[in-house]
Amino acid sequence: VRKIKLGFLGLGVVASGTLACLQRNREAIMRRLGCELELVRVAVRNLEAPREFSVPRDLLTRDPWEVVRDPEVDLVVELMGGTDPAKELILEAFRSGKSVVSANKEVLAKYGDELFAAVEATGAGFYFEGSVCGAIPIVRALKQSYAGDKVLELVGIVNGTTNYILTAMDEEGRSFEEALAEAQRLGYAEADPTDDIEGFDAQRKLAILADLAFATRVNLQDVFVEGIKGVQAKDLANARDFGYVLKLLAMGKATDEGLELRVHPALVEEKHPLAAVRGVHNAVFVRSEGMGEMMYYGPGAGSEPTGAIVAADILEAARNLIHEVRNATPCTCLYDLPVRPMEEISIAYYIRMVVEDRPGVLAQLADCFGRHSVSIKTVIQKAVNGSAAEIVWLTHPAKEADVQASLAELRRLPSCKSIPAALRVYG
Amino acid sequence: VRKIKLGFLGLGVVASGTLACLQRNREAIMRRLGCELELVRVAVRNLEAPREFSVPRDLLTRDPWEVVRDPEVDLVVELMGGTDPAKELILEAFRSGKSVVSANKEVLAKYGDELFAAVEATGAGFYFEGSVCGAIPIVRALKQSYAGDKVLELVGIVNGTTNYILTAMDEEGRSFEEALAEAQRLGYAEADPTDDIEGFDAQRKLAILADLAFATRVNLQDVFVEGIKGVQAKDLANARDFGYVLKLLAMGKATDEGLELRVHPALVEEKHPLAAVRGVHNAVFVRSEGMGEMMYYGPGAGSEPTGAIVAADILEAARNLIHEVRNATPCTCLYDLPVRPMEEISIAYYIRMVVEDRPGVLAQLADCFGRHSVSIKTVIQKAVNGSAAEIVWLTHPAKEADVQASLAELRRLPSCKSIPAALRVYG
Repeated sequence: VRKIKLGFLGLGVVASGTLACLQRNREAIMRRLGCELELVRVAVRNLEAPREFSVPRDLLTRDPWEVVRDPEVDLVVELMGGTDPAKELILEAFRSGKSVVSANKEVLAKYGDELFAAVEATGAGFYFEGSVCGAIPIVRALKQSYAGDKVLELVGIVNGTTNYILTAMDEEGRSFEEALAEAQRLGYAEADPTDDIEGFDAQRKLAILADLAFATRVNLQDVFVEGIKGVQAKDLANARDFGYVLKLLAMGKATDEGLELRVHPALVEEKHPLAAVRGVHNAVFVRSEGMGEMMYYGPGAGSEPTGAIVAADILEAARNLIHEVRNATPCTCLYDLPVRPMEEISIAYYIRMVVEDRPGVLAQLADCFGRHSVSIKTVIQKAVNGSAAEIVWLTHPAKEADVQASLAELRRLPSCKSIPAALRVYG
Repeated sequence: VRKIKLGFLGLGVVASGTLACLQRNREAIMRRLGCELELVRVAVRNLEAPREFSVPRDLLTRDPWEVVRDPEVDLVVELMGGTDPAKELILEAFRSGKSVVSANKEVLAKYGDELFAAVEATGAGFYFEGSVCGAIPIVRALKQSYAGDKVLELVGIVNGTTNYILTAMDEEGRSFEEALAEAQRLGYAEADPTDDIEGFDAQRKLAILADLAFATRVNLQDVFVEGIKGVQAKDLANARDFGYVLKLLAMGKATDEGLELRVHPALVEEKHPLAAVRGVHNAVFVRSEGMGEMMYYGPGAGSEPTGAIVAADILEAARNLIHEVRNATPCTCLYDLPVRPMEEISIAYYIRMVVEDRPGVLAQLADCFGRHSVSIKTVIQKAVNGSAAEIVWLTHPAKEADVQASLAELRRLPSCKSIPAALRVYG
């Protein structure tokens, strides 16, 4: 029985999790595959760094090109992250006819096009389940389980950091700043949390998932993005009163006018399965023509979960090498669907404003919405404080451009003191 | 480009859903596979029956053996259900070197052993995602995503009928009988609902899922089963007061003493993701060493969802035929783990009893639990009515045999008038 020889790029936490998982389940994996996996080469930045998983010193190299060019290596496992030199290394691996397993969402979201074209030309395989939503096997589900079906909508809670923050604000009434500081203390948020809280991480993941879900090439800049900075605990409490929970959602939808692709905080009905996703957990909700509504829920990050799903990719890659399957993972982008501009999408809103408390003001505000074709579903005067009143509006779905125009005009009205919250409603 | 030729056994609702799905997505499927799927033969019981999906009359036959023996057929799709003649037909298909897609849980649960041995001898493929939990791609997840990991626990809400009934009892306070009648009126329950409400359907599904999850052969009779008959709305309301929801769970767990396999109603903590699974939906919760806690949620039945997932199986089978992959779906039973007897398993209980309302009774009852090593976590006197009191106990986990012995003794005590509920707690 032949051995499948692995070359690793990177030996950080996910790589350590992967190698620990492969070692722990070595015997079962051998029996499942009918052959052995052998680690033959590992590129690291620092030969002397202390590591969670120790690898014999003579396998280590500081030159990643050695790994992708090593004729002994059957399968390259890229866990170094970033786009440079990861992208060129993956392309070189494909040129040498090697299959690649990667958990690198940056390179996928930015250069998916180029990578898929390259792998198809060589017949090698490209596996990237670990690049989105940690251990949740959503890439595999979209590629396989929906292969004979048509996905209509995909909505995910794909960023654990922001979901942790929003859950703490919702359940414990904390402020955004307190919840963020706690997430940083617990290691759920980076020292510089920009990528997570501005929604950029979710934007990258949606670009990858929408590619697969809608069989079309999605560019990162096609995805509208708005983060959770400035969200106030008060509005999460108000949302609860209306029967909603606030989540940072990554949403893709196929419509007759094209794809809708957006990441922003959104009110979700309490009975929707996504509403129950708490803390650092991730979930992806998929609605398809045939299968209806499904949800995939699990840990969205972590070295152990991501390591285990990278191990599953390695097994699938190894199985395809053993069976000599060429082009086992062809590009799934069959179409070139247009993306709808955000301004044209019809969305309901939750709007909280502080206004002057005197006769005629409500009529003036309502008239402004009306002139912009924004129709009101519910209006509640939430609190009064001296000469000011707080009003919360729930609108019916209205064109994004119309809502933004009405908000701009309202902000200029002397009777409207401020608009502390304008949050979109999902559904 | 060659065509992959399909022979169908059965043309009921799931088969119609499958064919409609394949037809609707014909162009995308051709582009994904690089070849066409063609229906060449269909066995039906009645040639003249009206059908949801119409098939040219000359493809129909009343003899299913014609389909499995037809040399033109590459892939047999068995959607007739039952074990006789389905089992022999599948075996004959394997003998002719044909791959088989099946959504037949009876034949899988009862004869999985034999079928896997037969398919392995021939190198053909065997695909059965549609046999458990409708469209939820849990078979694929267990076979692929956990291939490099170790499943520790699998807990499912795998029967939509009983979950519909329990949800109606919980949310609308209906009686079991009312909720069952409503489920029957809506087509969610059969005229004879025995299979569902006694838990036998869930038992079969757990046998199939546990096979895959724990890589061991599970026999149907190894799975302890208890249905939801006799469950009272009052106990669902009490459970809510304690922070629990009552669900019919199918539970598998790997312990050092062997596998625990059981289907019974159980109290689930409100914050557990399974607690949010309402109505006819299904969900499977999986805890593994590497990936941690994941949940797969979706429609557990229905001709459209099941048809779409059978279509996905057909695509996978076709892809393996095109790539000439032999033994693409080897048996995953690597081990022969023992199954723990139910009596030895340690389980917490919710127990409601009606007792005489006089001094000393509570002490007498508590003493009985104590003598059987059943330790009490909470006790609440829920209602008083004349000379009778109602007491609800929540126990700590205790050996099933000890709990049953204490209940038997309590039933014989004159001060204990009745024990209307003894429900197990999950976790």
